[in-house]
Amino acid sequence: MSGDTSTVPIDLGERSYLVHIGPGEQARLGQRCRDAGLGRRAMVVSNPAIARHFGQSILTSLGRAEIDARLVTVVPGERAKKLATVGHLCDQAIAAGLDRGSFLVALGGGVVGDVTGFAAACLYRGVALVQVPTTLVAMVDSSVGGKTGVNCALGKNLIGAFWQPSLVAADLDALTTLPARERRCGLAEVIKHGAILDLDLFERLEEALVRRPAAGDFALTPRVGLSAELARYSVERSCRLKGAVVAADEREAGQRAWLNFGHTFGHALEKVCGLGRLHHGEAVSIGMVLAARLGVRRGELAGADSERLERLLAAAGLPIQVPRGTDPAALLAAMGHDKKVRDGRLKLVLLSRLGQAFVAGDTPTAMIEQLLNEASREA
Amino acid sequence: MSGDTSTVPIDLGERSYLVHIGPGEQARLGQRCRDAGLGRRAMVVSNPAIARHFGQSILTSLGRAEIDARLVTVVPGERAKKLATVGHLCDQAIAAGLDRGSFLVALGGGVVGDVTGFAAACLYRGVALVQVPTTLVAMVDSSVGGKTGVNCALGKNLIGAFWQPSLVAADLDALTTLPARERRCGLAEVIKHGAILDLDLFERLEEALVRRPAAGDFALTPRVGLSAELARYSVERSCRLKGAVVAADEREAGQRAWLNFGHTFGHALEKVCGLGRLHHGEAVSIGMVLAARLGVRRGELAGADSERLERLLAAAGLPIQVPRGTDPAALLAAMGHDKKVRDGRLKLVLLSRLGQAFVAGDTPTAMIEQLLNEASREA
Repeated sequence: MSGDTSTVPIDLGERSYLVHIGPGEQARLGQRCRDAGLGRRAMVVSNPAIARHFGQSILTSLGRAEIDARLVTVVPGERAKKLATVGHLCDQAIAAGLDRGSFLVALGGGVVGDVTGFAAACLYRGVALVQVPTTLVAMVDSSVGGKTGVNCALGKNLIGAFWQPSLVAADLDALTTLPARERRCGLAEVIKHGAILDLDLFERLEEALVRRPAAGDFALTPRVGLSAELARYSVERSCRLKGAVVAADEREAGQRAWLNFGHTFGHALEKVCGLGRLHHGEAVSIGMVLAARLGVRRGELAGADSERLERLLAAAGLPIQVPRGTDPAALLAAMGHDKKVRDGRLKLVLLSRLGQAFVAGDTPTAMIEQLLNEASREA
Repeated sequence: MSGDTSTVPIDLGERSYLVHIGPGEQARLGQRCRDAGLGRRAMVVSNPAIARHFGQSILTSLGRAEIDARLVTVVPGERAKKLATVGHLCDQAIAAGLDRGSFLVALGGGVVGDVTGFAAACLYRGVALVQVPTTLVAMVDSSVGGKTGVNCALGKNLIGAFWQPSLVAADLDALTTLPARERRCGLAEVIKHGAILDLDLFERLEEALVRRPAAGDFALTPRVGLSAELARYSVERSCRLKGAVVAADEREAGQRAWLNFGHTFGHALEKVCGLGRLHHGEAVSIGMVLAARLGVRRGELAGADSERLERLLAAAGLPIQVPRGTDPAALLAAMGHDKKVRDGRLKLVLLSRLGQAFVAGDTPTAMIEQLLNEASREA
């Protein structure tokens, strides 16, 4: 199997780690942990559905490598993303006898990765973390780069830590169990990576999704919603792109902010529409459309590029319109509590062309307001 | 006034900072923050009693430096040290409009420093922190070095972060308002620094406290419990000693563990006797006595050195006996949940002589048990 595995190094000095991508990675997890020099005691965190699918095989793999592990679960979905969950995970880990040399394993999607990662950052002031992403979103985005966190009443991900994993194991077999909606959300982040950093990736996705060839390596398959080859390419390319950005700017002083393309609008949409109604990738999809249109309005992005982005997102089955009945004033207010505000000015990631992003801190509020009003009327 | 100020640099690469020690430092805080390149919006965290003493002058100083600050308080004492307090502080900071470029100010003792520091570590995944210690414990120990955290049901400081301040301002004038009990707790940590790292410091304290000269620079004064000169010397020397240890071993992989001398026994005493009954410095004092006796029992420390340590602690007005009625079995169990356990073995900091510590991971549990039994019977 391991001939099928790609390994992407994430270069962060003494916090460097490897991302292993391929089928069968979950079965190899125990040995990967030993190879990474991790301890002999671990707590695996998941949600009930994912634990049912993969929990036993993960525990078996760890056990074969003589790692004493237990499995705990958090409630499914965004409602797990609160500080109390992190405290509860720490309590469970302490009660289970984990020490400073032990580690946590996040087995699941973005939510599990975020709360488990934050718990690893806080437990004994920091223990090692292994990310085992089971969704496309987590594989192409959230499991790499060290952002962890929880939500609070005033917004998403406002409380958290930068805490890099010691190892990421993305088992592509897990994607076969993924609901179509989750697959689409993952594609939103892959499309984002293309739009901000890599025209080649963008065009390969266009080729597969917009032009829909009847056959070939990149053809869609009904089972996973995208071909095995496109999935592998998307995950590997995304990890390489994101890894390079994070290596250059771990704490988001500069270029890392590009990865937030679509996210300031997206977080506001999630908040105003009610957490959980729009999935994160769906909100980001609409957010990217709004950010692209803002770029056109500012005269910095060609209208044709904005339209190509909308077409690709739509072809991936993602929403591109603000949900009907959304209050544009509430959206604008929610954007004001985003982390990307600094000294009272909203910083937005925009495109100058497909494959090239920049940060603009000078958009007049009136222009954003008008954009949101029009987008809400269209809905 | 600034001729009276000592400045101790803490050398941590890009996380380096200065500790300013002297009278009048609170009035200079605003300018210090500007000099350190901090932002223009801040939240000052304190407890009600400390806020009454110093809150307004801190806000005035920040305001004069054109820093927009507000003051919030947490409940006094150890019961503030829980994860919910950290979440509440983050919520208040977000609601107050702080952004990633803003900063938190911890105005108070160890508890305020720990929860405010942890909140700064988590808010927007990390904002700048200023420590303004008002107690001797905080000046000589907790405000320097970046340890932050909260308690949980199973033990003290088990959840937290390493988060260095950008600036520490220790205003020696604040010590004049300090209750005698708090002064004694601070001296416990100064004595600790002498015992593990610096025979000179230990002997100067002996000179002042055991031999009690009738007059001179180091004489005790009724007002602050120790002379202004001894206070200044203790704070500056402690910051230099601790700064050097932290610079060499920020995340406690080695020598930093020495700073935990007396703390594994101490944390267990605090837990078993009920958080709050024994103050931290008192528990550490008894803990140091137990650790020194264990060293004698292991044949590594001269009995005379252990007795000198007990005599100095007693002269400082600190307890040196386990409180009457303490269950030795409960103490031993509580020690098992300390962070210093690794792979099931309890690591203890011991002395080889006054001024020289080491970490021992090989003490038989039976020997610790016997020590605790005897110490409890003596009480």
